[in-house]
Amino acid sequence: MSSVRRFAPESSGNFRWQEVDRLRYKDEGSAPFKDVTRQVLFAPPDQAGELRYFEIAAGGYSTLERHQHTHAVLILRGRGAVRIGSEQHAIHEHDLVTIDPLTWHQFHADADGALGFLCLVSRERDRPQLPSADDLAPLRGST
Amino acid sequence: MSSVRRFAPESSGNFRWQEVDRLRYKDEGSAPFKDVTRQVLFAPPDQAGELRYFEIAAGGYSTLERHQHTHAVLILRGRGAVRIGSEQHAIHEHDLVTIDPLTWHQFHADADGALGFLCLVSRERDRPQLPSADDLAPLRGST
Repeated sequence: MSSVRRFAPESSGNFRWQEVDRLRYKDEGSAPFKDVTRQVLFAPPDQAGELRYFEIAAGGYSTLERHQHTHAVLILRGRGAVRIGSEQHAIHEHDLVTIDPLTWHQFHADADGALGFLCLVSRERDRPQLPSADDLAPLRGST
Repeated sequence: MSSVRRFAPESSGNFRWQEVDRLRYKDEGSAPFKDVTRQVLFAPPDQAGELRYFEIAAGGYSTLERHQHTHAVLILRGRGAVRIGSEQHAIHEHDLVTIDPLTWHQFHADADGALGFLCLVSRERDRPQLPSADDLAPLRGST
Protein backbone atom coordinates (compact mmCIF):
# COMPACT_ATOMS: atom_id res chain seq x y z
CA MET A 1 0.00 0.00 0.00
CA SER A 2 1.51 3.33 -1.05
CA SER A 3 1.98 5.69 1.88
CA VAL A 4 3.67 8.78 3.23
CA ARG A 5 4.67 8.00 6.80
CA ARG A 6 5.45 11.20 8.62
CA PHE A 7 8.57 11.83 10.59
CA ALA A 8 7.16 12.74 13.99
CA PRO A 9 9.99 13.30 16.46
CA GLU A 10 9.12 12.79 20.10
CA SER A 11 9.16 15.59 22.63
CA SER A 12 12.45 14.12 23.92
CA GLY A 13 13.96 14.76 20.50
CA ASN A 14 14.21 11.06 19.71
CA PHE A 15 13.61 10.19 16.07
CA ARG A 16 10.35 8.42 15.42
CA TRP A 17 8.17 7.68 12.40
CA GLN A 18 4.43 7.20 12.32
CA GLU A 19 3.33 3.59 11.95
CA VAL A 20 6.86 2.35 12.60
CA ASP A 21 7.41 0.32 15.78
CA ARG A 22 10.35 0.98 18.02
CA LEU A 23 11.89 -2.43 18.62
CA ARG A 24 14.53 -3.87 20.85
CA TYR A 25 17.98 -3.71 19.30
CA LYS A 26 18.60 -7.28 20.48
CA ASP A 27 17.28 -9.53 23.18
CA GLU A 28 18.55 -8.41 26.58
CA GLY A 29 21.43 -10.58 27.72
CA SER A 30 22.16 -11.94 24.24
CA ALA A 31 25.16 -9.63 23.80
CA PRO A 32 26.71 -6.60 25.53
CA PHE A 33 25.16 -3.25 24.52
CA LYS A 34 23.66 -0.18 26.19
CA ASP A 35 20.60 1.91 25.34
CA VAL A 36 19.96 1.06 21.69
CA THR A 37 16.63 0.82 19.85
CA ARG A 38 15.71 -0.26 16.32
CA GLN A 39 13.06 0.82 13.80
CA VAL A 40 12.56 -0.96 10.47
CA LEU A 41 11.89 1.83 7.96
CA PHE A 42 11.67 -0.21 4.77
CA ALA A 43 11.48 -3.94 4.20
CA PRO A 44 9.39 -4.23 1.03
CA PRO A 45 8.68 -7.92 0.40
CA ASP A 46 9.67 -7.60 -3.28
CA GLN A 47 13.02 -6.01 -2.47
CA ALA A 48 16.23 -7.72 -1.46
CA GLY A 49 17.35 -4.90 0.85
CA GLU A 50 16.09 -3.49 4.14
CA LEU A 51 16.67 -0.09 5.73
CA ARG A 52 16.73 0.08 9.52
CA TYR A 53 17.20 3.01 11.90
CA PHE A 54 19.15 2.50 15.12
CA GLU A 55 19.23 5.06 17.88
CA ILE A 56 21.81 4.98 20.66
CA ALA A 57 21.03 7.14 23.69
CA ALA A 58 23.69 9.49 25.12
CA GLY A 59 26.53 7.42 26.55
CA GLY A 60 25.23 4.21 24.98
CA TYR A 61 26.88 1.80 22.57
CA SER A 62 26.11 -1.02 20.19
CA THR A 63 27.55 -4.51 20.49
CA LEU A 64 31.17 -5.03 19.50
CA GLU A 65 30.68 -7.58 16.73
CA ARG A 66 31.51 -8.64 13.19
CA HIS A 67 29.74 -10.41 10.35
CA GLN A 68 30.31 -11.56 6.81
CA HIS A 69 28.11 -8.93 5.17
CA THR A 70 29.46 -5.46 4.43
CA HIS A 71 28.11 -2.87 6.84
CA ALA A 72 26.61 0.21 5.14
CA VAL A 73 25.66 2.97 7.59
CA LEU A 74 24.54 6.61 7.15
CA ILE A 75 24.50 8.77 10.29
CA LEU A 76 21.13 10.51 10.49
CA ARG A 77 21.49 12.49 13.73
CA GLY A 78 23.95 13.38 16.45
CA ARG A 79 27.59 12.68 17.06
CA GLY A 80 29.61 9.78 18.30
CA ALA A 81 32.39 7.42 17.34
CA VAL A 82 32.79 4.18 15.48
CA ARG A 83 35.44 1.57 16.15
CA ILE A 84 36.51 -0.22 12.96
CA GLY A 85 39.07 -2.89 13.79
CA SER A 86 41.81 -1.13 15.76
CA GLU A 87 40.79 2.38 14.64
CA GLN A 88 38.36 4.89 16.14
CA HIS A 89 36.67 7.54 13.99
CA ALA A 90 34.58 10.47 15.14
CA ILE A 91 31.27 10.49 13.24
CA HIS A 92 28.49 12.98 12.79
CA GLU A 93 25.32 13.65 10.86
CA HIS A 94 25.26 12.33 7.27
CA ASP A 95 28.67 10.63 7.37
CA LEU A 96 28.80 7.36 5.42
CA VAL A 97 30.43 4.43 7.23
CA THR A 98 31.38 1.28 5.32
CA ILE A 99 32.78 -1.66 7.24
CA ASP A 100 34.43 -4.60 5.51
CA PRO A 101 33.29 -8.20 6.04
CA LEU A 102 34.46 -9.83 9.29
CA THR A 103 35.81 -6.54 10.70
CA TRP A 104 35.13 -5.84 14.39
CA HIS A 105 33.06 -2.71 14.86
CA GLN A 106 31.10 -0.83 17.50
CA PHE A 107 29.17 2.46 17.54
CA HIS A 108 29.18 4.84 20.53
CA ALA A 109 26.99 7.89 21.11
CA ASP A 110 28.64 10.94 22.62
CA ALA A 111 28.07 11.44 26.34
CA ASP A 112 25.84 14.46 25.79
CA GLY A 113 23.51 13.36 23.01
CA ALA A 114 22.01 10.50 21.04
CA LEU A 115 23.42 8.99 17.86
CA GLY A 116 21.00 7.78 15.21
CA PHE A 117 21.92 5.96 12.01
CA LEU A 118 20.47 4.16 9.03
CA CYS A 119 21.78 0.69 8.23
CA LEU A 120 21.29 -0.98 4.85
CA VAL A 121 21.30 -4.78 4.79
CA SER A 122 20.23 -7.60 2.54
CA ARG A 123 17.25 -9.58 3.69
CA GLU A 124 19.47 -12.66 3.51
CA ARG A 125 22.53 -12.14 5.70
CA ASP A 126 24.71 -13.90 8.26
CA ARG A 127 24.28 -13.37 11.98
CA PRO A 128 26.80 -11.23 13.92
CA GLN A 129 29.64 -12.91 15.75
CA LEU A 130 30.79 -11.88 19.23
CA PRO A 131 34.48 -11.55 20.11
CA SER A 132 36.31 -14.14 22.17
CA ALA A 133 38.82 -13.12 24.84
CA ASP A 134 41.56 -13.74 22.28
CA ASP A 135 39.83 -11.42 19.80
CA LEU A 136 39.47 -8.69 22.40
CA ALA A 137 43.07 -8.51 23.56
CA PRO A 138 44.54 -6.79 20.46
CA LEU A 139 41.52 -4.46 20.16
CA ARG A 140 41.89 -3.28 23.74
CA GLY A 141 45.60 -2.78 23.38
CA SER A 142 45.29 -0.40 20.48
CA THR A 143 43.24 2.42 22.00
CA MET B 1 37.83 -1.23 2.15
CA SER B 2 36.33 0.09 5.40
CA SER B 3 35.90 3.85 5.35
CA VAL B 4 34.26 6.87 6.89
CA ARG B 5 33.25 9.13 4.03
CA ARG B 6 32.51 12.59 5.32
CA PHE B 7 29.42 14.54 4.58
CA ALA B 8 30.85 17.72 3.09
CA PRO B 9 28.03 20.01 1.96
CA GLU B 10 28.93 22.48 -0.75
CA SER B 11 28.93 26.21 -0.19
CA SER B 12 25.65 26.33 -2.13
CA GLY B 13 24.11 24.11 0.55
CA ASN B 14 23.80 21.13 -1.80
CA PHE B 15 24.37 17.77 -0.16
CA ARG B 16 27.62 16.11 -1.14
CA TRP B 17 29.77 13.29 0.21
CA GLN B 18 33.51 12.88 -0.12
CA GLU B 19 34.56 10.29 -2.70
CA VAL B 20 31.02 10.03 -4.05
CA ASP B 21 30.47 11.19 -7.62
CA ARG B 22 27.55 13.38 -8.53
CA LEU B 23 25.97 11.68 -11.53
CA ARG B 24 23.33 12.52 -14.05
CA TYR B 25 19.87 11.46 -12.94
CA LYS B 26 19.22 10.10 -16.43
CA ASP B 27 20.52 10.76 -19.91
CA GLU B 28 19.29 14.08 -21.20
CA GLY B 29 16.39 13.62 -23.58
CA SER B 30 15.62 10.07 -22.41
CA ALA B 31 12.65 11.24 -20.33
CA PRO B 32 11.14 14.51 -19.07
CA PHE B 33 12.72 15.86 -15.86
CA LYS B 34 14.27 19.08 -14.55
CA ASP B 35 17.34 19.73 -12.42
CA VAL B 36 17.95 16.35 -10.77
CA THR B 37 21.28 14.77 -9.78
CA ARG B 38 22.17 11.33 -8.37
CA GLN B 39 24.80 10.06 -5.94
CA VAL B 40 25.27 6.35 -5.20
CA LEU B 41 25.97 6.18 -1.45
CA PHE B 42 26.16 2.43 -1.00
CA ALA B 43 26.30 -0.38 -3.51
CA PRO B 44 28.38 -3.04 -1.74
CA PRO B 45 29.06 -5.88 -4.18
CA ASP B 46 28.05 -8.50 -1.60
CA GLN B 47 24.72 -6.83 -0.88
CA ALA B 48 21.49 -7.12 -2.82
CA GLY B 49 20.41 -3.52 -2.09
CA GLU B 50 21.70 -0.10 -3.11
CA LEU B 51 21.17 3.28 -1.49
CA ARG B 52 21.11 6.31 -3.78
CA TYR B 53 20.69 10.01 -3.02
CA PHE B 54 18.75 12.20 -5.46
CA GLU B 55 18.71 15.95 -5.25
CA ILE B 56 16.14 18.07 -7.07
CA ALA B 57 16.94 21.79 -7.33
CA ALA B 58 14.32 24.41 -6.41
CA GLY B 59 11.49 24.22 -8.89
CA GLY B 60 12.73 20.96 -10.41
CA TYR B 61 11.05 17.60 -10.72
CA SER B 62 11.77 13.95 -11.37
CA THR B 63 10.29 11.97 -14.25
CA LEU B 64 6.65 10.91 -14.00
CA GLU B 65 7.10 7.16 -14.21
CA ARG B 66 6.25 3.76 -12.77
CA HIS B 67 8.00 0.42 -12.34
CA GLN B 68 7.40 -3.03 -10.98
CA HIS B 69 9.63 -2.64 -7.90
CA THR B 70 8.31 -1.01 -4.75
CA HIS B 71 9.70 2.49 -4.28
CA ALA B 72 11.22 3.13 -0.85
CA VAL B 73 12.22 6.76 -0.26
CA LEU B 74 13.36 8.72 2.79
CA ILE B 75 13.44 12.52 2.46
CA LEU B 76 16.82 13.74 3.66
CA ARG B 77 16.50 17.50 3.13
CA GLY B 78 14.06 20.18 2.12
CA ARG B 79 10.42 20.26 1.19
CA GLY B 80 8.37 19.39 -1.81
CA ALA B 81 5.58 17.18 -3.01
CA VAL B 82 5.13 13.69 -4.34
CA ARG B 83 2.45 12.57 -6.74
CA ILE B 84 1.35 8.98 -6.09
CA GLY B 85 -1.23 7.96 -8.68
CA SER B 86 -3.94 10.60 -8.56
CA GLU B 87 -2.89 11.97 -5.14
CA GLN B 88 -0.45 14.71 -4.17
CA HIS B 89 1.27 14.71 -0.78
CA ALA B 90 3.41 17.43 0.74
CA ILE B 91 6.70 15.94 1.95
CA HIS B 92 9.49 17.17 4.14
CA GLU B 93 12.67 16.07 5.88
CA HIS B 94 12.69 12.47 7.14
CA ASP B 95 9.27 11.48 5.78
CA LEU B 96 9.10 7.90 4.50
CA VAL B 97 7.46 7.45 1.10
CA THR B 98 6.47 3.99 -0.10
CA ILE B 99 5.05 3.61 -3.60
CA ASP B 100 3.36 0.42 -4.74
CA PRO B 101 4.44 -1.46 -7.87
CA LEU B 102 3.28 0.02 -11.19
CA THR B 103 1.98 3.21 -9.53
CA TRP B 104 2.67 6.49 -11.35
CA HIS B 105 4.78 8.83 -9.24
CA GLN B 106 6.77 12.04 -9.48
CA PHE B 107 8.75 14.16 -6.99
CA HIS B 108 8.77 17.96 -7.05
CA ALA B 109 10.99 20.34 -5.08
CA ASP B 110 9.38 23.45 -3.68
CA ALA B 111 9.96 26.63 -5.67
CA ASP B 112 12.22 28.11 -3.00
CA GLY B 113 14.55 25.26 -2.09
CA ALA B 114 16.00 21.89 -3.05
CA LEU B 115 14.56 18.48 -2.19
CA GLY B 116 16.96 15.63 -1.44
CA PHE B 117 16.00 12.04 -0.81
CA LEU B 118 17.41 8.58 -0.30
CA CYS B 119 16.06 5.76 -2.45
CA LEU B 120 16.53 2.09 -1.60
CA VAL B 121 16.48 -0.37 -4.49
CA SER B 122 17.49 -3.91 -5.25
CA ARG B 123 20.47 -4.31 -7.53
CA GLU B 124 18.22 -6.37 -9.80
CA ARG B 125 15.17 -4.34 -10.75
CA ASP B 126 12.98 -3.47 -13.71
CA ARG B 127 13.40 -0.26 -15.69
CA PRO B 128 10.94 2.63 -15.25
CA GLN B 129 8.08 3.00 -17.72
CA LEU B 130 6.96 6.36 -19.13
CA PRO B 131 3.29 7.30 -19.41
CA SER B 132 1.43 7.24 -22.72
CA ALA B 133 -1.07 9.97 -23.60
CA ASP B 134 -3.83 7.63 -22.43
CA ASP B 135 -2.08 7.16 -19.07
CA LEU B 136 -1.68 10.92 -18.61
CA ALA B 137 -5.30 11.95 -19.20
CA PRO B 138 -6.73 10.69 -15.88
CA LEU B 139 -3.68 11.88 -13.94
CA ARG B 140 -4.03 15.40 -15.29
CA GLY B 141 -7.74 15.49 -14.67
CA SER B 142 -7.40 14.76 -10.98
CA THR B 143 -5.31 17.67 -9.81
